[in-house]
Amino acid sequence: MRLSDVGEFGLIEMVTRNIKPGAGVILGIGDDAALYAIPEGSWQMVTTDTLVEDVHFSLEYTTWRDLGWKALAVNVSDIAAMGGRPLYAVIGLCLPSDSDIVSVQELYAGLGEAAEAFGVSLIGGDTVRGPAVVLNITVLGAVEANRAVYRSGARSGDLVMVTGTLGDPAAGLFLLQNPDYDTGSEGERRLKQAHLRPEPRVEAARRISAAGGVTAMLDVSDGLSSDIAHICRDSEVGVLIRGDHIPLSDALRDLASRLGRDPLGWALHGGEDYELLFTIDVEQADRTREALAGSGIGCAVIGEVSPKEDGNRIVYQGSVKTLPPGGFNHFRMSGK
Amino acid sequence: MRLSDVGEFGLIEMVTRNIKPGAGVILGIGDDAALYAIPEGSWQMVTTDTLVEDVHFSLEYTTWRDLGWKALAVNVSDIAAMGGRPLYAVIGLCLPSDSDIVSVQELYAGLGEAAEAFGVSLIGGDTVRGPAVVLNITVLGAVEANRAVYRSGARSGDLVMVTGTLGDPAAGLFLLQNPDYDTGSEGERRLKQAHLRPEPRVEAARRISAAGGVTAMLDVSDGLSSDIAHICRDSEVGVLIRGDHIPLSDALRDLASRLGRDPLGWALHGGEDYELLFTIDVEQADRTREALAGSGIGCAVIGEVSPKEDGNRIVYQGSVKTLPPGGFNHFRMSGK
Repeated sequence: MRLSDVGEFGLIEMVTRNIKPGAGVILGIGDDAALYAIPEGSWQMVTTDTLVEDVHFSLEYTTWRDLGWKALAVNVSDIAAMGGRPLYAVIGLCLPSDSDIVSVQELYAGLGEAAEAFGVSLIGGDTVRGPAVVLNITVLGAVEANRAVYRSGARSGDLVMVTGTLGDPAAGLFLLQNPDYDTGSEGERRLKQAHLRPEPRVEAARRISAAGGVTAMLDVSDGLSSDIAHICRDSEVGVLIRGDHIPLSDALRDLASRLGRDPLGWALHGGEDYELLFTIDVEQADRTREALAGSGIGCAVIGEVSPKEDGNRIVYQGSVKTLPPGGFNHFRMSGK
Repeated sequence: MRLSDVGEFGLIEMVTRNIKPGAGVILGIGDDAALYAIPEGSWQMVTTDTLVEDVHFSLEYTTWRDLGWKALAVNVSDIAAMGGRPLYAVIGLCLPSDSDIVSVQELYAGLGEAAEAFGVSLIGGDTVRGPAVVLNITVLGAVEANRAVYRSGARSGDLVMVTGTLGDPAAGLFLLQNPDYDTGSEGERRLKQAHLRPEPRVEAARRISAAGGVTAMLDVSDGLSSDIAHICRDSEVGVLIRGDHIPLSDALRDLASRLGRDPLGWALHGGEDYELLFTIDVEQADRTREALAGSGIGCAVIGEVSPKEDGNRIVYQGSVKTLPPGGFNHFRMSGK
C-alpha cells in the first residue's frame, strides 16, 4: 500500500494510533498545537535537525526503523550535551507519494523505540508529500535553571575529556558503504551498529553536570577535530590533544589493522560519535570519573585546554602538529 | 553567490547575524540547543509545519521574503487558534546547493518581519542541502493553564462564528496562478496579498478566549467545510452553516462577479484563510462580539451546532444540503 492510497489524514491516524501520551503531555497529537508541562524551576530547551535522503542517510544500507531511531537519537544527544533531559518531540516528515506505508510505519516504530528508550513523548508533527525523504525532528527538553553546560566556558588549564570510544560509527559507515571489506565478524557488526543506532549519553551528561567542575560540553557529531574547535572558538582558548590517549575500541583497531589504516583518522574526523566531549576543572576530574563510573560509561582525559595563542594542536607519535577542524590531512579519510 | 560558495556555517553566520535575542531567550542560536523561559503558571505549546516547493508554494509567484513571512505566520496561527501566545521559533531549512544566497537572505528577512510582527524570537535551526526547498518551522508558545481552547468542546445549541472574511486567499491564489484574469485593480492586489501574507489572529483569539463562552476553536487552513468538520468530529456534534451569512469581501465578490463564479466556492473550500472559526455559548456571543470590536477584527455568526445525528449541513439559496469536508461538489473549485 502506498502513501497516495491512504492520504495524509489516513497516514497520521495509522502511525499515531499507538502513541501513548506520556507524563506531562496535556494534549497530544490532533489539535492545532500540542500542550505540555515542564518541571518548575527549569529552563526550557529546544534543538532541531533536518535529515535528507542521500545527503545525511542512505536507504541502501539504513532500514527505516534505524532511520527513525537515529533521527530522534541525534536530537536527544544535543539536549544531553547541555546537561538537560529530553522530554518531547515533534516530527516534520516529507515523503514521496509513492512511499510504501510499511516503510513509514517502520520509521515511526524506530522513532517510538528511541522515544521510549530516552523518555521522550511524541506530541506533534506534520506529514507532507515531496520529491525526497526529508525528516525534521525538534526535541524539547528542560534543565535545572543555571545548570546548563555551554560550549563557551572552557579555561586554559582545564582537562579535555571524552566519554566512550571514538571512531566506531565512521568505521561502521565505511563498512556499510564498502561491503566487500565486511567479513561479518562480531566486531564489524558492532561498528555498523554504532553508525546505525547511536546511543546519546543522557545519563552520563547528567552525572557530569551534577558532579560539578565541567566548564564546557558538546556531543561529538562533526568529529573530534571539528567539535573541539567549536569549544575553542566559543571559549576563546586553544587546546593540546594527546593522540595516544584518544580511546579506541578493539573492533576499530582490528579493522584498521586489517586494512592497513591508522584508526585515529576515524576517531579524529569521522564524526557522528555522539559521545560527550567536555572540559573540566583539573581539581574535579576525579569526582567526575567516579560519578561516571556508576553509569557504566567510560571516560578518558585526552588533552588540556591551553591559551588561545597556542592554537589547536595534537601530539601524536612524538611530534606536535596543528589540528585544524576536520582537516588534519594526514589522517583525513577520503570521501569524508 | 551560491550556497555552495559559503557552506553551511557561512550561511548560518550570514543569516543569523541580525537576529537579536528577544525577551525570555537565555541562550539563542549557536550551541547544541537553545535555552528559553516560559511565563510561570503557563502550559507550553508546540506546533510544526513543513512546506515543500511546488507542493505548498511556488517560487514562480511567491517571493522568498513572502515565503519566509508565510511559513512563520501559519504556525503562529496554530498557536493563536488555541488561545495562546507565540514566543519562539526554530527553522529547519533544506536548500539545493545552487541556491542563491540573496534568496536565502530574503527568506530570513521575511521570517524576521513576521517574527517581529508577532513577537516571536528565532532561537534555533538547521540548514542542510537537498534536492528541493523544504522549510520546516516549529513554533513554541504558552497559554495560561486551563485556558487553552480545543477543537473538542462544541455543544449542540452553540453558535458558529468566524473572524474576518473567507475566500480571499483562495481567490488571490487563483489570480497568481492565472495572471491573465488579473486586471491589476486594488481589490485584486488585496486578494493576492491575502494569499501571500496571511495575518494570524493572535490578538483576536486572545480576546475570544478571555471573554469566555468559547467552546471550540481552530484556524481556517484547510477550508471552512473541512475545518468545521474537524470541530464536528472532535466534538461529536453536527452543524448547520448558513451560506448567506458567510462574510465575503467586496474584492472577492467583484472578482467572482466578473468571472461569473459563485464566491462561496472559494469561501467554503479554498482554505489558507487563517481566520478563527469558533463555537460559542449562545448567551455569551454578545460579550465576544464586544471584545473583538476593540481589536478591529470583524466577526460573524455563520451557523449553529446541532446534534451529531443531523450531520454537517449548509442552508444556501433556500435549500438545505449536506456539507462534506472539502467536498461540496457544487462549489468545488477545479484544481484545488
